[in-house]
Amino acid sequence: MLRVGIIGVSGYTGVELARILSGHPQIEITVATSRQYEGKPLSEVYPNLRGCVELTCTNPAADELPELADFFFTAVPHKTAMDIVPPLLKAGKKVVDLSADFRIREVAVYEKWYQPHTSKELLPEAVYGLPELYRDRVKTCRLTANPGCYPTSVILGLAPLLREGLIDPATLIIDSKSGTSGAGRGASVATLFCEVTDGFRPYKVGGSHRHIPEIEQELSALAGNPVTVSFTPHLLPVSRGILSTMYARLTTDCDLASLDALYQKTYQHERFVRLCPPGTVPATQHVRGSNFCDIGLAIDRRAGRVIVMSAIDNIVKGAAGQAVQNMNLMHGFAETTGLLGAPFFP
Amino acid sequence: MLRVGIIGVSGYTGVELARILSGHPQIEITVATSRQYEGKPLSEVYPNLRGCVELTCTNPAADELPELADFFFTAVPHKTAMDIVPPLLKAGKKVVDLSADFRIREVAVYEKWYQPHTSKELLPEAVYGLPELYRDRVKTCRLTANPGCYPTSVILGLAPLLREGLIDPATLIIDSKSGTSGAGRGASVATLFCEVTDGFRPYKVGGSHRHIPEIEQELSALAGNPVTVSFTPHLLPVSRGILSTMYARLTTDCDLASLDALYQKTYQHERFVRLCPPGTVPATQHVRGSNFCDIGLAIDRRAGRVIVMSAIDNIVKGAAGQAVQNMNLMHGFAETTGLLGAPFFP
Amino acid sequence: MLRVGIIGVSGYTGVELARILSGHPQIEITVATSRQYEGKPLSEVYPNLRGCVELTCTNPAADELPELADFFFTAVPHKTAMDIVPPLLKAGKKVVDLSADFRIREVAVYEKWYQPHTSKELLPEAVYGLPELYRDRVKTCRLTANPGCYPTSVILGLAPLLREGLIDPATLIIDSKSGTSGAGRGASVATLFCEVTDGFRPYKVGGSHRHIPEIEQELSALAGNPVTVSFTPHLLPVSRGILSTMYARLTTDCDLASLDALYQKTYQHERFVRLCPPGTVPATQHVRGSNFCDIGLAIDRRAGRVIVMSAIDNIVKGAAGQAVQNMNLMHGFAETTGLLGAPFFP
Amino acid sequence: MLRVGIIGVSGYTGVELARILSGHPQIEITVATSRQYEGKPLSEVYPNLRGCVELTCTNPAADELPELADFFFTAVPHKTAMDIVPPLLKAGKKVVDLSADFRIREVAVYEKWYQPHTSKELLPEAVYGLPELYRDRVKTCRLTANPGCYPTSVILGLAPLLREGLIDPATLIIDSKSGTSGAGRGASVATLFCEVTDGFRPYKVGGSHRHIPEIEQELSALAGNPVTVSFTPHLLPVSRGILSTMYARLTTDCDLASLDALYQKTYQHERFVRLCPPGTVPATQHVRGSNFCDIGLAIDRRAGRVIVMSAIDNIVKGAAGQAVQNMNLMHGFAETTGLLGAPFFP
Repeated sequence: MLRVGIIGVSGYTGVELARILSGHPQIEITVATSRQYEGKPLSEVYPNLRGCVELTCTNPAADELPELADFFFTAVPHKTAMDIVPPLLKAGKKVVDLSADFRIREVAVYEKWYQPHTSKELLPEAVYGLPELYRDRVKTCRLTANPGCYPTSVILGLAPLLREGLIDPATLIIDSKSGTSGAGRGASVATLFCEVTDGFRPYKVGGSHRHIPEIEQELSALAGNPVTVSFTPHLLPVSRGILSTMYARLTTDCDLASLDALYQKTYQHERFVRLCPPGTVPATQHVRGSNFCDIGLAIDRRAGRVIVMSAIDNIVKGAAGQAVQNMNLMHGFAETTGLLGAPFFP
Repeated sequence: MLRVGIIGVSGYTGVELARILSGHPQIEITVATSRQYEGKPLSEVYPNLRGCVELTCTNPAADELPELADFFFTAVPHKTAMDIVPPLLKAGKKVVDLSADFRIREVAVYEKWYQPHTSKELLPEAVYGLPELYRDRVKTCRLTANPGCYPTSVILGLAPLLREGLIDPATLIIDSKSGTSGAGRGASVATLFCEVTDGFRPYKVGGSHRHIPEIEQELSALAGNPVTVSFTPHLLPVSRGILSTMYARLTTDCDLASLDALYQKTYQHERFVRLCPPGTVPATQHVRGSNFCDIGLAIDRRAGRVIVMSAIDNIVKGAAGQAVQNMNLMHGFAETTGLLGAPFFP
Repeated sequence: MLRVGIIGVSGYTGVELARILSGHPQIEITVATSRQYEGKPLSEVYPNLRGCVELTCTNPAADELPELADFFFTAVPHKTAMDIVPPLLKAGKKVVDLSADFRIREVAVYEKWYQPHTSKELLPEAVYGLPELYRDRVKTCRLTANPGCYPTSVILGLAPLLREGLIDPATLIIDSKSGTSGAGRGASVATLFCEVTDGFRPYKVGGSHRHIPEIEQELSALAGNPVTVSFTPHLLPVSRGILSTMYARLTTDCDLASLDALYQKTYQHERFVRLCPPGTVPATQHVRGSNFCDIGLAIDRRAGRVIVMSAIDNIVKGAAGQAVQNMNLMHGFAETTGLLGAPFFP
Repeated sequence: MLRVGIIGVSGYTGVELARILSGHPQIEITVATSRQYEGKPLSEVYPNLRGCVELTCTNPAADELPELADFFFTAVPHKTAMDIVPPLLKAGKKVVDLSADFRIREVAVYEKWYQPHTSKELLPEAVYGLPELYRDRVKTCRLTANPGCYPTSVILGLAPLLREGLIDPATLIIDSKSGTSGAGRGASVATLFCEVTDGFRPYKVGGSHRHIPEIEQELSALAGNPVTVSFTPHLLPVSRGILSTMYARLTTDCDLASLDALYQKTYQHERFVRLCPPGTVPATQHVRGSNFCDIGLAIDRRAGRVIVMSAIDNIVKGAAGQAVQNMNLMHGFAETTGLLGAPFFP
């Protein structure tokens, strides 16, 4: 049994890690930290876990942490992560970091969008934890930078087209919609039930969302050329789910069947990518609670555009589920362990 | 008092007409038809109206209709409208038709997207009832084709940019999201509560939605050149509201302040268009139940795009409210009569 | 034009007062206070009001307040109200207080459920502002204690039965369900969208909700004997609406027709009470945004119980709408002025 | 591997059976019938199952059915079930019937609330499949009548009190609230998204819901005396979940601690009953997707009532999950097999 630690267990991502890991047969959670709920059973904070996850929140000193587990998930805000991760690595532990701190390979880019980086020496070795792109590197690394939720939905949706040069990156428009859990569990007026329900709105319009540099880094790598994206997020009145609708001009004349064949080939061995049969579309309610990314394709001949739609659960494939997928790879477990529960609907 | 008739009062649009008109001080509803609910008080079908709207659904023969009122709203499906409207006009009545039958000026285009047209002779005189564009013509016509909900949100959002040639129409992407009331009140599995709630999905992807020719007709007229749009609708888990996010490349280098000034000037006398202060965005929950169209602007310098966001209530400014606005103009009432109630939130 | 002031305009109740009063033709809002948003246009805090309500939040000193208006609504928390109201009365102004501070006639009861009362001298003259029960007294008073939302739904539902002695008060069970706006606009984890949506739960179970003494005071007055109620509130995943389901044993054998006749007679002149035809039931979605209280009746012969169901919009008839109704009575306006907009659905 | 058949797989209950059984390691689904979707993959009807549940809907003749599996779930409407079940039993198969047809032990009662019964000879041997009450009988029977959703929530909540004679059954009031999935997947106006969202209403008020005889049968057996209940269902704007709030007078003076101790003792070995710590309450969002029944207790000293609150997922513990629990018992599998996934929140 692998001894696993969750740093920051009381947020929506932390508790989802606890839930998923509690169904993983080869690990045990030996430490789960929360400053706010120190000493409390996690199932008191999240009564859905009563009788399923028996964990008590603790708040160990930084120097005690390494000895409490052998594998760590750091589910803390960016800036906090860059301080917590180095001592864990130094103690010989492996880490999946769910913050943004190790996702951006160029220090200057990180510092432009976030703040000064105090652990830049780790950036070269951190692996961007999107297994569908970097499986081999994830398997052998000690630090995985778990991707952001929006980037996961975008990159998986566009990878085949960009890699084959089938779209013109300059024409790329990404219109994404996210459930409210993406805003976290902090008390705020903007995410009160009454402010969100029965409504819909964009936010951080005009190229200001911090997931942009992450998206561009990966799309550029796929395209082999710098890609600048127009990315606009919106807030959905649902708890979980991201749907990204992506538009671009095709560089060659190809039909839906050939695009579908390309995606089929690209993702044929990917257990967590599901392709919608041509003519059908993904929906967030069909991936809720699961680690799947559903992808649909369409061609708008009149307007000369390909449209890629991808749907994920922002807390699972967009955070905790993908983190467990990375742990499985890093530790040599079967990649899908603990992650194959079928999503329920309705 | 103008004697007003509502043909097809029992759908979501028809009942909204009844609600709005019941607060209009210069008209009286003298006939409200419904085959399904013939003989029933409307407030039995819609108990929200009890004590507010005293109407009984009737089902008069076609040839009795004209004498029952002097102004008609036809809130029936397309194809039905083209049969009902001509005799009303022939009898000297004025009509606002809420179907698609008289919106498309070119018969061939209509017939390509819908079906054969049996009243084409009326197309030249029907006025596209978007008062912000065609106020003068609406005032003097006898048949208004009330715009579709998506087109209303799109055209109002893009008109200033297209008219001034500030965007390249070939780069236009329109990503729209609509509440479920847009699907009407017919029993169907796809719009059951359990199928829609806590979810989100696109539909009619790839340039197949029937609002496309209507959007293109009006955008082309504004641009002075044929415009082909990439338009993708999505289904929101809200009852009312459309938010359209529209992307295009600017043809000249201009900043947000100058765009805002252009919109301010364009819409300065428009009571139902509200501009969001620069830096803020529209939200469907802020227009719910009202005839307002809220418009927000942003420029994404990195990606070289302008982003226009517009929000309406699909049943009000997108249907019944705009229809009453047209009636006010056609009959010479003050344009805003009955339409100025402030939307409530939450 | 009556000069009206709203003390505490930025909460959900305050802004609803502003919205309703903006449609009232005989008043003008001359002051609207908010400590938090001092200096801001109210339509910046609530963009739904843009173009409809032009008010700027101010924060005048306590001694300046009286001269700024002639009629005041105090929409502040209990305890705050008891300090604000006396100087206004002393200056000769009339007040509708929306807090709990003047609702309980017995000081000891108030102090048991709330805290020490610093303005007890006003309790004897404050009138419980439920016009359907106390219209004549409201008309002549200078201080109305606007009822709580739950009590409004309960008292209107039970009044006819208790007054006629048709039910045994000892058997009374009140099961109420409220929308989340009742919790106010304060940032809190418990009312975040993700915590409330797609869920349902009771709260303050076991006779601890502070609306209980208010309910009991009024039900006792109606029954002519002390009534102790079993009252349990629940939190609904809707923004607005209260539905109370009330159960009691009948003291005599009577049928639904005779109960319906009693309610018809009781409420025949009440514009804001709507009786559901026998066999039908009220629903919160049918009163949303309106000042109506919808009441339905049923008899369960097998179990020997009458069941009364009442639905209101907690912010309107349960707060701001009823407050305006009281102002209309206190100032001599027609009681329904500004309050007759038909609720919309869906 | 047990060969399992699902008769009626395309409703919400049928598909949930398919989902749960797909995670059960000791069975295989060998037939899944649907007249409507004959020949279609189930994952085309429910795309959430793509890649997880590989089943094709079939529509075999009645006489072919028995040979296609060894254990059957009949998820068909009442009246249909009474025709389908007998031949399966005759062929030596075991059956869990999810309809109401075999729940009521007295034919006369069944026929009063439903219709004539054509398989009454099976009533004496059918076991009411609430394992917490009838585990031993379930283990040895060949036909289980799977309980209704409301009855499951009610009976588990009240069993300890009734068995010990701690409450007066004549004072029992049951106020239940259910998610919309309980209405099934049939197209109907009443359960359209727009009719249900942002609203709440009672239905079948006055003792007319067909779950009443089932509730009374079981409560009477527990009390040892005939019990007549006042039961009122309500429709919640959520997809899954039932919360029942139950009120009764205590027959003896007891405190919350002793009641809690009684429940602890009663349910100490029940894996699927979770007791809320005194002072806390159940919530539907905490059991969603799981087979748990969460129970909370409160005493209202002032009103002299005990209040029992219970929450289940109506499709799981209220239908498909409990059916699998019964199969496990009937076939000798560990009772919890396939049923222990932790519910996720939010």
